[in-house]
Amino acid sequence: MRATIITIGDEILIGQIVDTNSASISRKLNAIGITIGEKISIADSREAIVTTVTRAMSESQVVVITGGLGPTKDDITKTTLAEMFNSKLRYDDKEGEHIRQLLARRNIAFTELNRSQALVPECCTVLHNAYGTAPGMWFDTAQGGVVVSLPGVPFEMEHLMDDIVVARLAERFALRSIVHRTLITRGIAESILAERIAAWEESLPRYMHLAYLPAPNIVRLRLSAYDVDRREATQAIDSEFNKLYAIIGDNILGYEDESIEHLIHEQLSKRGLSLAIAESCTGGAIASKFTAMAGASKYFLAGVVSYSNEAKRDILGVRMEDIERYGAVSEEVARQMAEGVRRVSGADYAIATTGIAGPTGGSEAKPVGTVWMAIATPTATYAQMRNSGNDRGQIISRATAYALEMLYEELKKLF
Amino acid sequence: MRATIITIGDEILIGQIVDTNSASISRKLNAIGITIGEKISIADSREAIVTTVTRAMSESQVVVITGGLGPTKDDITKTTLAEMFNSKLRYDDKEGEHIRQLLARRNIAFTELNRSQALVPECCTVLHNAYGTAPGMWFDTAQGGVVVSLPGVPFEMEHLMDDIVVARLAERFALRSIVHRTLITRGIAESILAERIAAWEESLPRYMHLAYLPAPNIVRLRLSAYDVDRREATQAIDSEFNKLYAIIGDNILGYEDESIEHLIHEQLSKRGLSLAIAESCTGGAIASKFTAMAGASKYFLAGVVSYSNEAKRDILGVRMEDIERYGAVSEEVARQMAEGVRRVSGADYAIATTGIAGPTGGSEAKPVGTVWMAIATPTATYAQMRNSGNDRGQIISRATAYALEMLYEELKKLF
Repeated sequence: MRATIITIGDEILIGQIVDTNSASISRKLNAIGITIGEKISIADSREAIVTTVTRAMSESQVVVITGGLGPTKDDITKTTLAEMFNSKLRYDDKEGEHIRQLLARRNIAFTELNRSQALVPECCTVLHNAYGTAPGMWFDTAQGGVVVSLPGVPFEMEHLMDDIVVARLAERFALRSIVHRTLITRGIAESILAERIAAWEESLPRYMHLAYLPAPNIVRLRLSAYDVDRREATQAIDSEFNKLYAIIGDNILGYEDESIEHLIHEQLSKRGLSLAIAESCTGGAIASKFTAMAGASKYFLAGVVSYSNEAKRDILGVRMEDIERYGAVSEEVARQMAEGVRRVSGADYAIATTGIAGPTGGSEAKPVGTVWMAIATPTATYAQMRNSGNDRGQIISRATAYALEMLYEELKKLF
Repeated sequence: MRATIITIGDEILIGQIVDTNSASISRKLNAIGITIGEKISIADSREAIVTTVTRAMSESQVVVITGGLGPTKDDITKTTLAEMFNSKLRYDDKEGEHIRQLLARRNIAFTELNRSQALVPECCTVLHNAYGTAPGMWFDTAQGGVVVSLPGVPFEMEHLMDDIVVARLAERFALRSIVHRTLITRGIAESILAERIAAWEESLPRYMHLAYLPAPNIVRLRLSAYDVDRREATQAIDSEFNKLYAIIGDNILGYEDESIEHLIHEQLSKRGLSLAIAESCTGGAIASKFTAMAGASKYFLAGVVSYSNEAKRDILGVRMEDIERYGAVSEEVARQMAEGVRRVSGADYAIATTGIAGPTGGSEAKPVGTVWMAIATPTATYAQMRNSGNDRGQIISRATAYALEMLYEELKKLF
């Protein structure tokens, strides 16, 4: 079963926003066994909508559209679809009342424009949008396919997919499963990895598709199987991955999209250990990775973004004479930051980073990208320097990855 | 001048990653006057690549492709393009040597797979990828158009676009300009705004396209003009926007896509004022927004992620009896956090957040999503409570937005 996803909006084509909807819709459709053949983003243009939806309907049984359902003149998805399906617009009392109530709760008057949001093509099934003012629409096509139009607001789209669309599609079509499983390796370059597992790769069953997904210090291996029995395929993939332990066991970090922060999160939670973080160049990026996860408050005690030298001294107790002698980006300072945040927070483990994120501030001896990292544990403090690239964003994300890796290595001693 | 952007990779179609490359490429092409007609994401499939690139070449003079250039078997973009352009692959010595050096620096052996990355179609112009092992490729088509193939690693793609592709395209085609200007309004619902400015919208010159972009608490109005003289169009758009001050002046926040953190960054830098942040529920998200911007070290002194009550007390000086009496999520604690981080860092301004990010920890009186925010200034401290939703990620991002808005309001008093 093939689907096309179409996201509509000039703001996507000019790069004013990043389209996150299509990735989310892909995952939800994959989960019920629908393969995405193509994702297309087009402008709020009648011609582009007609051409693209028509082509999509000829290539896919399922077409999911987001965007262009707002109340203002630039949004024309609904009227264009009504025209394509040769259908008049009717006023839907239930949706109209819902919109009126939503606005009343926010003390906003119900205007003619809002009224127009309750107009729907006669031929469609209305998908009630409990979280917003633009209803979704479900069209059954003459070719036996389905076209679904959803609002572009991510939160509203998500609820419509989860609460209505996914179940309706699963009911409508006889779907088999798609299985994706991802194994995470680390500390081995993609090209070397590919050579080491070449024989394994050759021997994979033909219906399994292998992909390499490199990231800083990490390569994910994904095996995918389409149009299969879920249980059988999952077992078969797991058994293929199991063979890898004999080949590259030391480099295997874990399964699925579990990030290293998830693995640390699990270990700390399980063992009742606590964590604190002192960040200079990573500027809160490490702390926010942990605090984004529900349950982080169980083990995450404190983070300090000690950007200024005075903050390093006053909050973390780093000795100013060491900052002056060795520089803020130095092994000495990284160690004192880790030990300092561990001390002031009372945490069992602490991470510290201090580096030159650029674009300025580098020197011959310490170029942009130089990052010192330290881990303070109940028994010792370890530090290491990693050159983390030459672009500010890259340096922050790599230094974050390296520091997390250091902590993970340390925690592994407990396993 | 029309372009099509094609992003290739199974990981995009299954939703394992969000495609951020195409938004970035759109902005860079728009900046030199090239309009994006369509963005398409397809699988690592020979058939999909041939069909889609062929169609794109017939519809657009410029086709920019990313992805599928890795060294492993799942990446087939290069061989497919070579086939489409009827061109053999040759070994490029310069690229080969570059790859060898990049790997040597990371202590990785140069293998046959790496060697294959230096193979390029004879007919293309090689675009040197200084930051990675996959060179970019530039093809001149028989129809007078251009097809550019770039690696999918965002960082490498960015550099190739900025350092080579944009200049080559601008040189190759006689391009006029595209002008986008965005005015940011706040505190007015989209439908009400549209009614209030309806007469203004009616009177806009036909070549200007108006778009409404709603977000929490904010509606952006974007005027776009395509294929115009940059200076003239910018002036014309600014003069149209100026008329809005008479109609909705109180609701106008500012211009462009400058995020509120950019506006704050500029103000603090310009005025030599400093900032510190104490975060509980936002967990470092606010600090990392500032520290992601080059030059933040000029004004950003320190951030404290005081997740535990003890961290609030020991690092920020929040009184434990107030935490016990009012709760960690309370006006009192938010105020003391802001004042505390301002005091320990010596900053002029401080932001604090404390809230219930969920999914657990809510109560009848303080449901999940309750967030107290405070701003401490040289003369006073202000606090407010905002309910920020019911999903952890949403709560963190909304609370971040609300806190930044509070600080921006405060800084506006200085304008």
